[in-house]
Amino acid sequence: MSASIEQRLQALEDRAEIAALIARYGPAVDSGDGDAVRALWTDEGTYVIDDVTLDAGGIRTLTELPTHQEYMSAGCAHVISAPRIQLTGDAAVATTHSVVMIHDGERWNAERVSANRWELARTVDGWRVSRRRNHLLNGAAAARALLTD
Amino acid sequence: MSASIEQRLQALEDRAEIAALIARYGPAVDSGDGDAVRALWTDEGTYVIDDVTLDAGGIRTLTELPTHQEYMSAGCAHVISAPRIQLTGDAAVATTHSVVMIHDGERWNAERVSANRWELARTVDGWRVSRRRNHLLNGAAAARALLTD
Amino acid sequence: MSASIEQRLQALEDRAEIAALIARYGPAVDSGDGDAVRALWTDEGTYVIDDVTLDAGGIRTLTELPTHQEYMSAGCAHVISAPRIQLTGDAAVATTHSVVMIHDGERWNAERVSANRWELARTVDGWRVSRRRNHLLNGAAAARALLTD
Repeated sequence: MSASIEQRLQALEDRAEIAALIARYGPAVDSGDGDAVRALWTDEGTYVIDDVTLDAGGIRTLTELPTHQEYMSAGCAHVISAPRIQLTGDAAVATTHSVVMIHDGERWNAERVSANRWELARTVDGWRVSRRRNHLLNGAAAARALLTD
Repeated sequence: MSASIEQRLQALEDRAEIAALIARYGPAVDSGDGDAVRALWTDEGTYVIDDVTLDAGGIRTLTELPTHQEYMSAGCAHVISAPRIQLTGDAAVATTHSVVMIHDGERWNAERVSANRWELARTVDGWRVSRRRNHLLNGAAAARALLTD
Repeated sequence: MSASIEQRLQALEDRAEIAALIARYGPAVDSGDGDAVRALWTDEGTYVIDDVTLDAGGIRTLTELPTHQEYMSAGCAHVISAPRIQLTGDAAVATTHSVVMIHDGERWNAERVSANRWELARTVDGWRVSRRRNHLLNGAAAARALLTD
């Protein structure tokens, strides 16, 4: 049975909204807006960076960490690639690369290059991140695993 | 009141058209096509790079500048990130990062990494850039300000 | 004559599907999944890298090449920019930049920065790549030519 006009529109809107959510991360973190970063996740959402798991409180205060404050003072860009989005009803998975460029006074260096797997959920307030996993692409199998189907 | 099918389609088409417009910038500038670069802006459009403001004539001749000609001879890529687009009727704002990679004979270096805020307008010829502001992410608060809501 | 709702939906779906196809490349190649890479192309599809042309067999075994295996062991990211897509019925052309970041133990270096021109075809199984051309942006006119209209 073919999808209806409504279903097709909804699927396109879901993709657009998820892409917009993910595209909000870099500008929010680079401008030091912890509340905007936090608002991308559900209340129970987590952000797993290598072996560390942040909850909502940790996500909100990410930009206050000394390392992040140094990044912003030097000049930083958290560049997220165009996502691959897989929709299944009220859930979705998106995979992206992320590249963190830091200014060293002359040029910018890629200090972090990671694989990212974003698990997303449709909530009453729209799509939100339920879990994001980020792993440095440093040769570890765990990073490559985030990029598989 | 719910949006109609027509309104929902239009909003999706607006986003797709704006994304396509922004995605045209890098290929146009890297291939030295000044007319294609110019055509992304309205006739009165401006491009503000740090403290310099270019009008239509300046935008059209950007690729003829000695610095840009050297970039193209060495090998350059103006990579624009997937935009965050905020639509409000016949106007829109998009935020992106941009990274300018230059070949040094062996590898490519990030010579410029910037925050970008694109103000766009719906014209009779479709969406065009009315003002783009670009600021190096070198620690300046002015750059971070371009990435806020 | 205006496009119908069906035509407008189809065009948006085509763009979304093509963007998803292209966004699949980086994760597939960085996780070493040759079958997933291969599946992006038609059976007769080719991948032209500078002066080398790969057919389906060559595309499927790209990730098995010693250079690619070294990249994965060190840590690599094939980052593809948000595509510019031009649709014409059952064919499409997309242009992107691609940046290959390799870990050197401390940070990541851009080992390859290329212009890409993806020719795509609508098949019974959906959109597939019929020919992708990739050329290093090293100052060669052939690379810049891939980015023109």
